[in-house]
Amino acid sequence: MKRRQTRTDLVLTINCGSSSIKYKLFSFPEEKVISKGIVEHIGEKGHNISDHHAGMEYVLDRLIDDGIDLSDITAVGHRVVHGGEEFIEPTVISPRVVKKIRSLFSLAPLHNPANLEGIIACQNILKGKLQVAVFDTAFHSTIPDYAFTYALPYEYYKKYGIRRYGFHGTSHRYVSIIASKRLKKSVSKTNLITCHLGNGCSITAVKGGCSVDTSMGFTPLEGLVMGTRCGDIDPALVLFLQEKEGLASEEIDRILNKKSGLIGISQVSNDFRELIQARARGNKLARLAIEVFKYRILKYVGAYAMVLGRVDAIVFTGGIGENVKEIRDYVGKQAKKVISGQPKIMVIPTDEELMIARHTIKLVKSRRGR
Amino acid sequence: MKRRQTRTDLVLTINCGSSSIKYKLFSFPEEKVISKGIVEHIGEKGHNISDHHAGMEYVLDRLIDDGIDLSDITAVGHRVVHGGEEFIEPTVISPRVVKKIRSLFSLAPLHNPANLEGIIACQNILKGKLQVAVFDTAFHSTIPDYAFTYALPYEYYKKYGIRRYGFHGTSHRYVSIIASKRLKKSVSKTNLITCHLGNGCSITAVKGGCSVDTSMGFTPLEGLVMGTRCGDIDPALVLFLQEKEGLASEEIDRILNKKSGLIGISQVSNDFRELIQARARGNKLARLAIEVFKYRILKYVGAYAMVLGRVDAIVFTGGIGENVKEIRDYVGKQAKKVISGQPKIMVIPTDEELMIARHTIKLVKSRRGR
Repeated sequence: MKRRQTRTDLVLTINCGSSSIKYKLFSFPEEKVISKGIVEHIGEKGHNISDHHAGMEYVLDRLIDDGIDLSDITAVGHRVVHGGEEFIEPTVISPRVVKKIRSLFSLAPLHNPANLEGIIACQNILKGKLQVAVFDTAFHSTIPDYAFTYALPYEYYKKYGIRRYGFHGTSHRYVSIIASKRLKKSVSKTNLITCHLGNGCSITAVKGGCSVDTSMGFTPLEGLVMGTRCGDIDPALVLFLQEKEGLASEEIDRILNKKSGLIGISQVSNDFRELIQARARGNKLARLAIEVFKYRILKYVGAYAMVLGRVDAIVFTGGIGENVKEIRDYVGKQAKKVISGQPKIMVIPTDEELMIARHTIKLVKSRRGR
Repeated sequence: MKRRQTRTDLVLTINCGSSSIKYKLFSFPEEKVISKGIVEHIGEKGHNISDHHAGMEYVLDRLIDDGIDLSDITAVGHRVVHGGEEFIEPTVISPRVVKKIRSLFSLAPLHNPANLEGIIACQNILKGKLQVAVFDTAFHSTIPDYAFTYALPYEYYKKYGIRRYGFHGTSHRYVSIIASKRLKKSVSKTNLITCHLGNGCSITAVKGGCSVDTSMGFTPLEGLVMGTRCGDIDPALVLFLQEKEGLASEEIDRILNKKSGLIGISQVSNDFRELIQARARGNKLARLAIEVFKYRILKYVGAYAMVLGRVDAIVFTGGIGENVKEIRDYVGKQAKKVISGQPKIMVIPTDEELMIARHTIKLVKSRRGR
């Protein structure tokens, strides 16, 4: 008992994008952030840092600048976007795990390669430290087959793993744990609808601590309206636009992912604050973009209420979820009318890095306990 | 008043598919079916009837066989699938209307050309009779912009009319009128969720007699799982499958429309009765197909409950909706738990032809009254 109280562990969390590395260093058991930062423009022309290995060296130099002795770091926790059906919980990284993350590249061609580069850079530079992968998809591994199966020819599930995976899992898990505490109920007895509204947006039905459905699907394109992503559309529109506009697959993909969503409707901005300002100036498309965004959330909340059977609270997180009261009021007002038991409306700031660090320290301790 | 009671009007309804003509002859004011039938395999090899004109001649010969004097027919009502944003109510067919229906071919390339062929054949053979077009999309013209707008670049709405249109409107309208009567409430004060579950499936939120949202979208592919159509999927899957399977647009279109849905998941049948039998024999994919189908309906019912704010009844119609009690029980049980006010569950056989005939006779009378 005494040893536990005095020993301090440092856990580094790493979140690699295609051209960025976000990092945070936590001390445990205090769960205090000792250092944090972001490296951007990796591999871009006119910038010094040529790849993720150089980026990780830069990160560690910053930690040393902050007075950290790197040998004091206990372990590193990495965000990995796609764990497929294989990884349903945080996993200590081994050569087999690296191989498997690589095999999932086709399911997450933009994210998993960057995540793996960060892992390999860390393995090279911080030799011998325990490295843990925490998967965005893992929290959604409890979704039942009737909710994850698309009504497509079944052979595509077997051949390509086509199914709903869901993302933002670490965030949905984190806020659902905090929400249970605030409700003073055990996680296993709490039913929640968690709305992660940031640059990407997703919504999850959480039953007794387990995800039972979520709005993102095979990719992060499905579901809610997002800053630049379309979310749900008639699938026939993809083919219609290809034909009418004479566009190649990559171009359509870019339109659906980068030119749609809030910016697509409004033609103004993908930033919600700017949309609210534009609406106040009388911009009709900004008004429309905000209403479409809110309405899509409303529909998912109703759908997931039916899935859950009972809803204790609707939780909002992410930049938009935490800051835009108008959305919470809109959903809350209708939920009070429709959903039996009148779920509470909550705002809970998310902290994916803390969740990753907690998962990592848990694996460290379970290894110590062996 | 006396004249009204004694005069009998005959209204012929015509529903043309690409290779079929369904017809019904109604007498008014009795609303009695005097004759009905279907002509199939039009234009197919090894069959006698080469086109819709020949098909219509065949239909009229059958009516004469049934002892009908064709000159007694007051008017003809045609089902037309797509009315675009132009046709928001039943419309007397004029040269301008024909031209406009033709201009909508790109929005409904499978249906509107067949519908128009039937209209032109009727105009040629039944010269001088009033011809009326009743549009599948018209009932949904009251859907507000925030519900019909996709989160795609807004210019596509202006350029191609890309938006949610919805279909099965005549059926949703018909059952919602009957439901209000059964509830002994005025249509304008009744909120309903109407589920049309047949070969195609769609679900509509009806507020005070007006459609405010519906699951089919720009095309009939979106929304619920259907016999052979996928309904909602991650739009990125269209591009993923194109690339992985190396398929052309038409092939993907065929897979999503003809090889998906219940037959796609189950690999057994698109017929619900056969799926239930296969499930009873222990077929796991038949079980999965049924569960995915039911679950998708459940989610839409929840979504539309939130849209409506209050739901008086959930109405089931169409072959599956009228016959499969399991689906109604599944939805009803969860609706009782979740939706305030505990909506009633109703079964109402649909009658699109009667609705078309009623619209037609109404236009006849308004012309007489001029």
